[in-house]
Amino acid sequence: MTGAAGFIGSNLVDRLLADGNKVVGYDNFSTGRRPFLASALRSPNFSLVEGDLLDTEKLSRVMAGCEMVFHLAANADVRFGTHHPFRDLEQNTIVTYNVLEAMRANGIRKIAFSSTGSVYGEATIFPTPENAPFPVQTSLYGNSKVAAEGLISSYCEGFGFQGFIFRFVSILGERYTHGHVFDFYQKLLADPSRLEVLGNGRQRKSYLYIHDCIDAVMVAVGKATEPVNIFNLGQDEYCEVNQSIGWICRRLNVAPELIYTGGERGWIGDNPFIFLDCGRIRSLGWTPKLSIQDGVVATLEYLIANPWVVEARS
Amino acid sequence: MTGAAGFIGSNLVDRLLADGNKVVGYDNFSTGRRPFLASALRSPNFSLVEGDLLDTEKLSRVMAGCEMVFHLAANADVRFGTHHPFRDLEQNTIVTYNVLEAMRANGIRKIAFSSTGSVYGEATIFPTPENAPFPVQTSLYGNSKVAAEGLISSYCEGFGFQGFIFRFVSILGERYTHGHVFDFYQKLLADPSRLEVLGNGRQRKSYLYIHDCIDAVMVAVGKATEPVNIFNLGQDEYCEVNQSIGWICRRLNVAPELIYTGGERGWIGDNPFIFLDCGRIRSLGWTPKLSIQDGVVATLEYLIANPWVVEARS
Repeated sequence: MTGAAGFIGSNLVDRLLADGNKVVGYDNFSTGRRPFLASALRSPNFSLVEGDLLDTEKLSRVMAGCEMVFHLAANADVRFGTHHPFRDLEQNTIVTYNVLEAMRANGIRKIAFSSTGSVYGEATIFPTPENAPFPVQTSLYGNSKVAAEGLISSYCEGFGFQGFIFRFVSILGERYTHGHVFDFYQKLLADPSRLEVLGNGRQRKSYLYIHDCIDAVMVAVGKATEPVNIFNLGQDEYCEVNQSIGWICRRLNVAPELIYTGGERGWIGDNPFIFLDCGRIRSLGWTPKLSIQDGVVATLEYLIANPWVVEARS
Repeated sequence: MTGAAGFIGSNLVDRLLADGNKVVGYDNFSTGRRPFLASALRSPNFSLVEGDLLDTEKLSRVMAGCEMVFHLAANADVRFGTHHPFRDLEQNTIVTYNVLEAMRANGIRKIAFSSTGSVYGEATIFPTPENAPFPVQTSLYGNSKVAAEGLISSYCEGFGFQGFIFRFVSILGERYTHGHVFDFYQKLLADPSRLEVLGNGRQRKSYLYIHDCIDAVMVAVGKATEPVNIFNLGQDEYCEVNQSIGWICRRLNVAPELIYTGGERGWIGDNPFIFLDCGRIRSLGWTPKLSIQDGVVATLEYLIANPWVVEARS
């Protein structure tokens, strides 16, 4: 598992261990957090290697004996692509190439990959299905994931790999470390009287609760049989940023003045509407348990109960 | 113009010069040929720099003062992706990033890019329009071009660039240096009694004559006004490999025994059917002048008249 100490990675580690698997975690701790692996590290079936995916020699050595790779490591910082244009290409695309080559060197052919709903750019069909019209990329982040997906599917065609590609909406819940709930909570802790909102607050987005996300990954990996298996993972609903602000403010019992930076988009390459058609993964028997509202509130409860998560970033 | 000494690049250089433009050519001569620039080098409006696109410092220096970049340099060797999996990523994707960054450093915001019909993977709609269903990539080559397209469109969104992206079918004609006409001619020169054909010969492909291709590029760059302008460039017809073999054998007056390697595909990631919907570029007033058959024969005439082109590769 690359990115084993990350938000989604560490939750997936725990699930794989609970299901009786042996897991080797690989993380460079650029954004991963050691405490997220506290429980995993107590298991004899888990080992952790601190390493970078650009260190191809170490990566290949660590992979020896594995049956499958979950490639979760990424630059997940969607907003700042234009601030450092090489980062997404390096940390999401080139690094995926390194993972695939390490797999090939070790005779491993099964890979699960965390892609993103951002691959659809500004979609024209809602909810957006996996075979939506060929998108025009609008963000370096989305494009770096498109390129990684294509590397994986090319290895499936060329080298007999099997790929499980997950196009996530934003994931919420325990161990959540970045995104709008995090940002709003952090800002409101600092000043509950006002809240700056990127864009006009009318952006519509779908969210999925982490344990629903992990369930979906396990269902897909267990049941999907094609060489290349691509799944949207999201909720059959979306909310406006403004709605989410309402839920957050109610839970925190604050009534800040809302200050909008304006415009349809929160940042360059932001997507004003993300809503994925998840019929394909649902047809395998998966159903999410938490609504978006419940997911937002659960995330907030987690952040409130774990002040170190918020403090480490402030 | 990157790839200025290549097949398409050198023809485009000649056209830009004929239209009265000043052109700076950049080529590392890994596959480019100096004789293709013989005519251009006689023009006071042309200068040539031998350089590699991985040499970002030189690239940026050479671009100073340019108004627009035609980025034609690429690893165009579609067939051998799995023999050296890094090459397409480096020579087509990373290098495009280098070009975009050099443009940004020089305040240049207009780029034309040679992409490929291979971005559609194994298309499900024929003729395939630009907004065909989101393809699953089957070749490292196709994917490396998808990734380069997305870098360009992300720079259009993030940095105010204007992009002209051309998804070519196979291009034929003067200065053609690789592809099926080249391979068949070379094989028949060596032994006119037998011809090995990759796959079952039933692959259906579309082709476009080089001067029709150059016309289309000039029409698009002159008339298209969106930030991101994506055009399929091909013929409104396709042929079977077997038909093309017939035209070639007739012209050469040979009747070889045909030996098929078998299978629907000529190589890993080969696409058994390429046929693009070119309505978008035609709506700007472009019409190709040569049929596929005429293009194949013109290519053969060129190779016959220029034995050095074939010898250099044998």
